[in-house]
Amino acid sequence: MKELAKLMDYRSGVRVVDATLRDGGLVNNFYFTDEFVRDLYHANIRAGVDYMEFGYKASKEMFDESKFGKWKFCKDEDIRAIVGENDTDLKIAVMADVGRCDYKTDIVDRTDSPVDLIRVATYLNTIPTAVDMIEHAVQKGYEVSCNIMAISNTQESDLAIALDILGQTPVDVFYIVDSYGALYPEQIARIVDIYRNFAEKYHKKIGIHAHNNQQLAFANTIEAVGDGVDWLDATYYGMGRGAGNCAMELLLGLLRNPKYHIAPVLKFIDQHMTKLHEKDVVWGYDLQYLMTGLLNHHPKTAIQFTKEKRSDYYEFYKEVMEQD
Amino acid sequence: MKELAKLMDYRSGVRVVDATLRDGGLVNNFYFTDEFVRDLYHANIRAGVDYMEFGYKASKEMFDESKFGKWKFCKDEDIRAIVGENDTDLKIAVMADVGRCDYKTDIVDRTDSPVDLIRVATYLNTIPTAVDMIEHAVQKGYEVSCNIMAISNTQESDLAIALDILGQTPVDVFYIVDSYGALYPEQIARIVDIYRNFAEKYHKKIGIHAHNNQQLAFANTIEAVGDGVDWLDATYYGMGRGAGNCAMELLLGLLRNPKYHIAPVLKFIDQHMTKLHEKDVVWGYDLQYLMTGLLNHHPKTAIQFTKEKRSDYYEFYKEVMEQD
Repeated sequence: MKELAKLMDYRSGVRVVDATLRDGGLVNNFYFTDEFVRDLYHANIRAGVDYMEFGYKASKEMFDESKFGKWKFCKDEDIRAIVGENDTDLKIAVMADVGRCDYKTDIVDRTDSPVDLIRVATYLNTIPTAVDMIEHAVQKGYEVSCNIMAISNTQESDLAIALDILGQTPVDVFYIVDSYGALYPEQIARIVDIYRNFAEKYHKKIGIHAHNNQQLAFANTIEAVGDGVDWLDATYYGMGRGAGNCAMELLLGLLRNPKYHIAPVLKFIDQHMTKLHEKDVVWGYDLQYLMTGLLNHHPKTAIQFTKEKRSDYYEFYKEVMEQD
Repeated sequence: MKELAKLMDYRSGVRVVDATLRDGGLVNNFYFTDEFVRDLYHANIRAGVDYMEFGYKASKEMFDESKFGKWKFCKDEDIRAIVGENDTDLKIAVMADVGRCDYKTDIVDRTDSPVDLIRVATYLNTIPTAVDMIEHAVQKGYEVSCNIMAISNTQESDLAIALDILGQTPVDVFYIVDSYGALYPEQIARIVDIYRNFAEKYHKKIGIHAHNNQQLAFANTIEAVGDGVDWLDATYYGMGRGAGNCAMELLLGLLRNPKYHIAPVLKFIDQHMTKLHEKDVVWGYDLQYLMTGLLNHHPKTAIQFTKEKRSDYYEFYKEVMEQD
């Protein structure tokens, strides 16, 4: 199955999705300046990125708007203020979490919205609601992906059932999401095999969203694209929850399609991302994330360790081993 | 060829080599405290690491001893002061660079030395001297590996010739060394194929030493061990020149042989490595190393950029593109 020896060439079906604002927003509660977002938008256009995810369509009932930056809610008018009519090749995406959004009211006709792609994020135990969200979004005219989170915690037979249900919806893309950064490339290859069975049966595309707990976000993305996965998530400088994601600069360094350019990514990081580090916005590989990744745990304990500016890794190791 | 689906089990022939002092010494000019070295030695014993590389056997004629820490020279008495009779399962290694050591005088009988393994490091254009060093070291009673550096810059047919010459020596291990951090896992698989041809013909083992310029040091090591490579280099917290190496904590998290233990590694990092960061000893992935890795350059320009505490990545990108 593996597409070896394809490094020199490229597959035109590959799509690069910039998830910096959405996954990175989990690090700074979505408090990005308008200048940051506007420059990121232009950097993505110049870099040839295919989709830019602006953030979440979170419920304004459940979440207090005064406690988060605006990209947790991604109101159409806020996106418009950045992209105008978006008369470019870059498409606009937002994520909608099952159980944390009011999709029936907040996801309006695509003709009235700057958004092109709705990414429905679900766990395996909420597939029927995901199906309802997918059908709503497709009916409103959007492209739709379904991102199955915490894939490392699922039984393969349950995953197969979920993909068979999702295959019968009008969703465009099935996503593999290694939320815990727990998977090795060999395991990615096995999971892709399962996804391919249903993607081929139902004519869907496959995507991957990786986390870097074991410094494998890029490697797992390489494994996936070599196995036929087309939709690839990345974030500038790897910015994302906990250990972060597959870095955009690494991914564009790998892809050989001449439409992609690494220089605008480097320039944006130079201008904007190092400043974030100076403001104590912290993400990236460190031992606490390795530990939760190894144990296939949600990274929340590791994120707390980071927030408390702890560096007693060995104590943390004993804590997480006790909880296991 | 690929050993897929072996993650749950282990291969008893695997050997883990801790290269922290040697490759990490390139970051701090080998100025490690005795306490650091002694604690590292004991951590390696507890972690089940197979070999600990103490540093280089560098020529005291060529290099001024007053300008480097003692582990650039690895005098037998300095090693003895740490390990005594080394009555443990951990073996002691040193590296000897072709052209930068006085092997005929400095590599004495193994019975008079605490060292078990001599790692001969060579480029492809100095193979005959490497052969002479190998023969000298084997004749003195040591285990010997030959580390072929800058493998990403070699022609495959030249590499095959070199391996055929080395195969006829009494060397024990052929090493793949991705000095520039330029290789993707798929390329590692291809290079391992070439090595295997000669390793099988001449009954040698294969090793890998990876660099992390593209966050692939661990992934390339996983690829290699899955393809039958037995000797695996790693360093605590990934400490090593430029972007650093495959992290020991990641590697021991992967390996399933019950002899290996991750906890002593975490404890050592907790006690010693975070302090190094505070002292401005800097290594690890960053954009300057990605750029030299992508371009298959020696990391020296990126190391200079780091030393000068520059963060104008985009200017650096233009500089290296101009030089290319």
